Amino acid sequence: MDFQTTPDLNFYKGKNILVTGGLGFIGSALSIKLVELGANVTIVDSLMPDYGGNMFNIDSVKDKVKINISDVRDRFSSNFLVKNQDVMFNLAGTLSHVDSMTDPFTDLEINCVSQLSLLEACRKNNPAIKIIFAGTRNQYGKAQYLPVDERHPLEPTDVNGINCNAGEYYHILYNNVYGIKSCSLRLSNTYGPRHQMKHSRQGVLNWFVRQIMDGQKIELYGTGAQIRDVHHVDDVVNAFIMSGASDNVWGQVYNTGGTPVSLKDFVEAGIKVYGKGSYKIIPFPEDRKPIEIGDYIADFFKIYRTIGWEPKVGLEEGLKNTFDYYKKNKKFYW
Amino acid sequence: MDFQTTPDLNFYKGKNILVTGGLGFIGSALSIKLVELGANVTIVDSLMPDYGGNMFNIDSVKDKVKINISDVRDRFSSNFLVKNQDVMFNLAGTLSHVDSMTDPFTDLEINCVSQLSLLEACRKNNPAIKIIFAGTRNQYGKAQYLPVDERHPLEPTDVNGINCNAGEYYHILYNNVYGIKSCSLRLSNTYGPRHQMKHSRQGVLNWFVRQIMDGQKIELYGTGAQIRDVHHVDDVVNAFIMSGASDNVWGQVYNTGGTPVSLKDFVEAGIKVYGKGSYKIIPFPEDRKPIEIGDYIADFFKIYRTIGWEPKVGLEEGLKNTFDYYKKNKKFYW
Repeated sequence: MDFQTTPDLNFYKGKNILVTGGLGFIGSALSIKLVELGANVTIVDSLMPDYGGNMFNIDSVKDKVKINISDVRDRFSSNFLVKNQDVMFNLAGTLSHVDSMTDPFTDLEINCVSQLSLLEACRKNNPAIKIIFAGTRNQYGKAQYLPVDERHPLEPTDVNGINCNAGEYYHILYNNVYGIKSCSLRLSNTYGPRHQMKHSRQGVLNWFVRQIMDGQKIELYGTGAQIRDVHHVDDVVNAFIMSGASDNVWGQVYNTGGTPVSLKDFVEAGIKVYGKGSYKIIPFPEDRKPIEIGDYIADFFKIYRTIGWEPKVGLEEGLKNTFDYYKKNKKFYW
Repeated sequence: MDFQTTPDLNFYKGKNILVTGGLGFIGSALSIKLVELGANVTIVDSLMPDYGGNMFNIDSVKDKVKINISDVRDRFSSNFLVKNQDVMFNLAGTLSHVDSMTDPFTDLEINCVSQLSLLEACRKNNPAIKIIFAGTRNQYGKAQYLPVDERHPLEPTDVNGINCNAGEYYHILYNNVYGIKSCSLRLSNTYGPRHQMKHSRQGVLNWFVRQIMDGQKIELYGTGAQIRDVHHVDDVVNAFIMSGASDNVWGQVYNTGGTPVSLKDFVEAGIKVYGKGSYKIIPFPEDRKPIEIGDYIADFFKIYRTIGWEPKVGLEEGLKNTFDYYKKNKKFYW
């Protein structure tokens, strides 16, 4: 099809790749895939408590990657780490609505100071690097129309979304002003193996998985009819991999998405796949109302059009894969 | 006219008003006006070198205002300062394109950390306060259409614009989530008395004024035909004053603007008003090209529609007033 240019993933063979947040949910799955593709992977992770970094996440490739435990807010380590890297997948950040409201300064440091620190390090030490930044649909706030395309206004409902907008746009600015090739993927709700399972503050989908496995009655707010555009981590990893190998994505932002599904339908699918479980509908908590973003469906035509990416993992298949992983490895996550 | 609700400026009589950046260009003119309107004015200013703060700026009211020299990045002083204030005019920030690119971290601290610090202080100590934030047309980046209204995409061409977007949107968020009444005025290029005259990094208009007064040949880049929407500081002050006294502006962002004029025409008007001066056209410096925003004309219908604000100071009148001020007070600015 000549309307797309599908990237050649042989690009990664022998390439030096830096993955910030590489011990986290998406970063670890991405790192494993990059190793499979023949890349020399360096993982940077702060292992900050509660943020999702987990050494077990990369257990299957632990002898094939370099691991550097450090905080990307530290400008000095960043200067060293970006040197000689061909591509940086920049997933170091926090995505907690709640935490960003209770401690906005930490969110600011992690999502703004860190990104500037990394970009300045690249500008000074490796301007030829390519960077793929992990953005989020939280950057849009409440959807003013559906599906949401990349031209939708950016009106976040939490500090995290504001800071992610700044963090993303630093990348686009450094692309435009300094020629440091950068793009951003605005991810919608992602679920799958390797997500932390200790708390619900980084996304509700995997928390539902845990509650089902723990035999807890899941509480859905309001009606449970809120639509999320859920995608499996394998599809997200593929979006990063394809973007990093493309010549056509730089300076751009792209939505990714998967299956638009109500939270209730997601939970019901989970219960069906797992074989048991239950839920109930409860009134919306007062303190959640102002930051609830309502229905979200991603328009991901732009990335489909540019590099041919589309989600491939169906909801039941993805849930089965997720339950299987946590059944086998529960002790590393519970 | 019943399509507008013109605010009653008697509102300010006896009110406690905090002006951050109150020793600076716009903040000082605003503070003087507030004193005239019978307000109890507290000025906060860091007097950071090069940022425009100047004790002489408020010389005419120095015995009628409280002055607190402190840095609003300091969370502890902010907690104290916001207490018992009815309105905060939040003008503490930096607007230098160039400085934000050479030292993005300082720009981030001043335009993001400071704003969060002030808003958190208000949330904890004075949630009934009203806040008017000083935004900038830099938040839009290059105009994708003219005139630029508030729905124009926010795609800044420098770190300062990105950070101002975050700083502004924190205010809107705190309005929406915590009910702290806030609005933002996105100012276009402002000139007039009390602007610092030591360097050109905070805007070129007053720098042209200085060059004319110094008998220097002004250098205009490219063709000199770049359009700026210039407004006199008195009009800007009026926009702040009217907004703070309104019940209809909260949670909103508004453009302000004045006379769309080419830089060449502005300089020619300045030379005419001053009576002498000269300029030449030189090629665009390479390092300025990527951050040049091109023509800008503000669509300020939204604020006109809401509170009846419109610019009133004509270009020649404003220039005369500016030259007169600096002729009389040159020793405090040169």
